[in-house]
Amino acid sequence: MAPKYKLHYFNVTALGEPVRYLLAYGKADWEDIRYEAEDWEKVKAKMPFGQMPVLDVDGKFHAQSVALSRYLAKQYGLAGKDDLENLQIDIAVDLFGDFRTKIGGWYYDAFPESKAAKEGPLFKEQIPFYLNKFEEIVKANGGYLVNGKLTWADIYFVAPLNYFKALTGNDFLVGYPGLQALVKTVESQPDIAAYIAKRPVNPENK
Amino acid sequence: MAPKYKLHYFNVTALGEPVRYLLAYGKADWEDIRYEAEDWEKVKAKMPFGQMPVLDVDGKFHAQSVALSRYLAKQYGLAGKDDLENLQIDIAVDLFGDFRTKIGGWYYDAFPESKAAKEGPLFKEQIPFYLNKFEEIVKANGGYLVNGKLTWADIYFVAPLNYFKALTGNDFLVGYPGLQALVKTVESQPDIAAYIAKRPVNPENK
Repeated sequence: MAPKYKLHYFNVTALGEPVRYLLAYGKADWEDIRYEAEDWEKVKAKMPFGQMPVLDVDGKFHAQSVALSRYLAKQYGLAGKDDLENLQIDIAVDLFGDFRTKIGGWYYDAFPESKAAKEGPLFKEQIPFYLNKFEEIVKANGGYLVNGKLTWADIYFVAPLNYFKALTGNDFLVGYPGLQALVKTVESQPDIAAYIAKRPVNPENK
Repeated sequence: MAPKYKLHYFNVTALGEPVRYLLAYGKADWEDIRYEAEDWEKVKAKMPFGQMPVLDVDGKFHAQSVALSRYLAKQYGLAGKDDLENLQIDIAVDLFGDFRTKIGGWYYDAFPESKAAKEGPLFKEQIPFYLNKFEEIVKANGGYLVNGKLTWADIYFVAPLNYFKALTGNDFLVGYPGLQALVKTVESQPDIAAYIAKRPVNPENK
């Protein structure tokens, strides 16, 4: 029997959103449980590592957004066809992890001097570096991140993008037509489009 | 035919070491190419994302240590038996990623005020939090991170540990007997033990 899923996450896109896109894509039986920041302290102790997203699979709680996305992708035919294709998917996903870590490391830096010093390199070097790499990869792979077909790497890349754009305060995909097309490809998958049409509208995903 | 591997990394353990342990464990045909810091600028442009470790598989360069470790693990029987076991492996590996990111985020912080503010929480809260979680996981899984048997999660955890201990300046496994035993289990695998016996001795892995 298909499992019953509940996704626990904040009421934002960010790292919960790839899991939501995958559950939507897979037509899973799932519940989208969203917490406001003020609820967090009350539920934190229930989460395996004091973090979310957490996926409840038939009553068992599992953390870590990348691990969860890879797991769901296998159920829904979005993993690679062999070990080498899965390696390419994992490389793209971990490259996106490096990219978002750079943005988060600047945005959430609580020390003004340190944050100010990161700003120039982030916007002038790091963001363009990663976006150029992704644009190259997408151009070399027929509009996708891996081997000319939709995989969970594409979903892991596209789903949280609005959140990281909102952190930087600009649409950093301007000038990257391959990546803009990839966003459209992922978000026009019928079950993902249907999920997007009914998800809560927040400042970061308007 | 079995592929010919070359691992490109700095002459330290850190993120290259799980890949080296896996290549040793798998009795791979591999070359251990080590760079000193002063060589890095000369070779950086050859690396796919300007980073190492990079694994050259029959002449093609692949980056990202976690992705590479997962790929090699599948060749050497160290992946999970099913999707749920692989999920548990991936969760443990990503939890270790969070742990090392906390240590690195403090150690490499260039701003004294910001670094000093991170030190208390790192040593008093975060390091114990993660080590307690890992100790619990190992106790619940018969001395391993997943399901009572050696998987690449164990290797990914143990291989870079001396490097992160060296960054913190102390042996943070004191008081964690389950994790100490896990280190012995991994490092007494005959092919890994043979690699350790002949690897270069550096301040961080003495």
